[in-house]
Amino acid sequence: MENWDELTLTVLKEIIANKQVKKLREVFEEVNIVDLAEMAEQCTLSEVLFVFKTVKKDITADLFAYLSLDKQEELIKTFTGPEIKSILDNLYLDDVVDFLEEMPESIVKKVLHNATSEQRVEINQLLSYAPNSAGSIMTTDYVELFEHHSVEEAMEQIRKQGKTAETINTCFVINKSNTLLGSITLRDILFASEDMEIGEIMDADIVAVTTGDDQEEVGHIFQKYDISVVGVVNSQFKLVGIITVDDVIDVLEEEATEDIHLMAGIRPVEGSYLESNVWEIFKSRIPWLLILMIPATLTGMIIAGNSAILLIVPSLVNFIPMLMDTAGNAGSQASAMVIRGIVVDDLSIKDFLAVLFKELRASFITGLILFAINTLRIVIFMPNVGITVAILVSFTVFLTITLANLIGGLLPLFALILKIDPASMSGPVITTLVDAVSLLVYFTIAIAVLG
Amino acid sequence: MENWDELTLTVLKEIIANKQVKKLREVFEEVNIVDLAEMAEQCTLSEVLFVFKTVKKDITADLFAYLSLDKQEELIKTFTGPEIKSILDNLYLDDVVDFLEEMPESIVKKVLHNATSEQRVEINQLLSYAPNSAGSIMTTDYVELFEHHSVEEAMEQIRKQGKTAETINTCFVINKSNTLLGSITLRDILFASEDMEIGEIMDADIVAVTTGDDQEEVGHIFQKYDISVVGVVNSQFKLVGIITVDDVIDVLEEEATEDIHLMAGIRPVEGSYLESNVWEIFKSRIPWLLILMIPATLTGMIIAGNSAILLIVPSLVNFIPMLMDTAGNAGSQASAMVIRGIVVDDLSIKDFLAVLFKELRASFITGLILFAINTLRIVIFMPNVGITVAILVSFTVFLTITLANLIGGLLPLFALILKIDPASMSGPVITTLVDAVSLLVYFTIAIAVLG
Repeated sequence: MENWDELTLTVLKEIIANKQVKKLREVFEEVNIVDLAEMAEQCTLSEVLFVFKTVKKDITADLFAYLSLDKQEELIKTFTGPEIKSILDNLYLDDVVDFLEEMPESIVKKVLHNATSEQRVEINQLLSYAPNSAGSIMTTDYVELFEHHSVEEAMEQIRKQGKTAETINTCFVINKSNTLLGSITLRDILFASEDMEIGEIMDADIVAVTTGDDQEEVGHIFQKYDISVVGVVNSQFKLVGIITVDDVIDVLEEEATEDIHLMAGIRPVEGSYLESNVWEIFKSRIPWLLILMIPATLTGMIIAGNSAILLIVPSLVNFIPMLMDTAGNAGSQASAMVIRGIVVDDLSIKDFLAVLFKELRASFITGLILFAINTLRIVIFMPNVGITVAILVSFTVFLTITLANLIGGLLPLFALILKIDPASMSGPVITTLVDAVSLLVYFTIAIAVLG
Repeated sequence: MENWDELTLTVLKEIIANKQVKKLREVFEEVNIVDLAEMAEQCTLSEVLFVFKTVKKDITADLFAYLSLDKQEELIKTFTGPEIKSILDNLYLDDVVDFLEEMPESIVKKVLHNATSEQRVEINQLLSYAPNSAGSIMTTDYVELFEHHSVEEAMEQIRKQGKTAETINTCFVINKSNTLLGSITLRDILFASEDMEIGEIMDADIVAVTTGDDQEEVGHIFQKYDISVVGVVNSQFKLVGIITVDDVIDVLEEEATEDIHLMAGIRPVEGSYLESNVWEIFKSRIPWLLILMIPATLTGMIIAGNSAILLIVPSLVNFIPMLMDTAGNAGSQASAMVIRGIVVDDLSIKDFLAVLFKELRASFITGLILFAINTLRIVIFMPNVGITVAILVSFTVFLTITLANLIGGLLPLFALILKIDPASMSGPVITTLVDAVSLLVYFTIAIAVLG
């Protein structure tokens, strides 16, 4: 047996080109399927098809699940009925649904046409759940046990149902009407004496989610309770599926990306940066750039409306960029902290006062320091500006820091009330808003002092 | 047996106050420990101590692991030697280390003093790994098997070692000198015939990490390979620990928080927003605010240096905020996409040209649209500005969008070369930088056209 640790794309392509069937099978037995999928991504369609015809069906099904959507679509288009059937038989249904959700109607039809009537019912059921809901990411392949099962009977059931189940490490205990009663780990079953009943040893403190729960919530339940699988129940508390931790990791990563994008004023994009074409990138960025032109225009009008004072004290203009940047940065800082607090620590509108006071106090210290440093900076490096303007500018910094922190800290909480994603209340939105506020403050003070 | 599904803090406190030992034990058997820890957080020290004296030791150890650092410190301070011993015996060592890492020296000494010599060696070893490395989050409680074990012998080993192991779902196969040879799931062992040898059925394509690997990398290996546990090896490929998926979920969430904070110009803070005191928040925010005053000052000097043209065409001032905001927003968008691409899709400096061209093309379309809309906006709403200035401003928007996208998209890649966290090349940094560039472009064009 050769050592395949260092398998390269070139070697793989050679094996396929020379139709070395035995070698190819060996490679697919030995090398990790995720790495093989990465290589297959760079193979031609006919090379990949040769793999699908040659290698064992359970392995190629797995390979299929790890391919990109483009490659999957290409393959399904050329697959015959029996080939699609074997994919369906060898994949967990949640993986089938993940891929069908992204496929055009014609592909979905072709796949469903080749499913058994049982598979079709389950796939259609899973497809009907709202996108990003627990129902849409769950699988129906799990091990179910009854309370009255003895440990011995349970092991028998696990051996029977476990062949197709996505996990056997946790089994779910239900009653005749399919109500979820508890869960039990394979470990507890192994360590129990054979004559005990499942009902006695199962874990009756149930952590379950309902089909309609948002996948982000599901992720946080995994995180909070340190579990590796969770039962999914319908509104009557009947068990309809399970979600395993590997899918949840993907969800958490996706949600973090979505939040980071939203926070930078980008609408969610499917697929990776390099995969997205220029048009998709453009569509994800242009909406906020356009929307934010409106408040940015207001800022311009504020300056236009105060042109009189700028004619009297022209040096006031020089401080506009610094004021806008500092205000924007302070606003972004506060909003990022609160937005992340909402996601990770369940911060909510009930914490309104706590956030208000924390930001007030933090901005007081920050503002004082910046007031001092900024005054010194102007007096030392711009002596011709004069102490009055220096203090005026620094006092504006102090005030705008406070306002920026309050706006940045509290807007995400208000977004929760309006059922808007708090992550959209950050970055560009806060910056542009806070810019306008800082200019208003600046001119109001300037007119009061100098005008 | 009562139904404890609706247990409230008040009820729990009553049970403790009335010293209802039996009821209290029942509660801790039935209710999820994470929920109980949340309640214990709001109990007094003497109430929590009563729980620790009353309830079974394995349950209170678990409770201890889920308490906040403050509560843990308070408890250890009052615990007697035997109480600390029972915590150590009932916790996985990675949880012990997680908590010791955050404790003051005196607490660490008190705990180590009560550990067995064997525990002390392992704890010290784990404590010596670099923070955020794989070694620092791994546990040494795992099941190890030998190649020549039969399935029957393996089951025996699992029953023996499994009592203290953090997981038995995946076991690790080593040779006499402790070199990692492969892994095997309990499922594969259960489904194999009893006379087979572990070496025949184990998975020899090893996914392992080394003790020095960064925890963020470990997280991505879990995500990429859809695994629930990974072996940790030293530089000689000897197995020294394992990392389970529950710890990895926490890592991924922490790293996302850190990135989001960095992207908003906040230095990492320990603990949640509400837990952090004002001083910690201040310290996390002030550095970038101060650093960014320098480029912001430069922007002011650019304006001061161009005051001549502003005196000739005063309306140019009105567009400064809009230009700065748009440039900053476009820069943030590009940097957020590339930063996330680096984390999620392994984008690296080798993708330099791909990013360059993508951003160039995306900014061309975006710039064109904004050029058109901005010209229209000025002509319609600010007729007295004149078409020349309108086109001049819009052309500046077009150019700064391009420059902002390029700076935002490419700086995070350069950060990789300099071994700086790419996430720090975003938000405030990019905004402030791009602001200066946009003003330079603005005045250069203005002087060329009007001057």
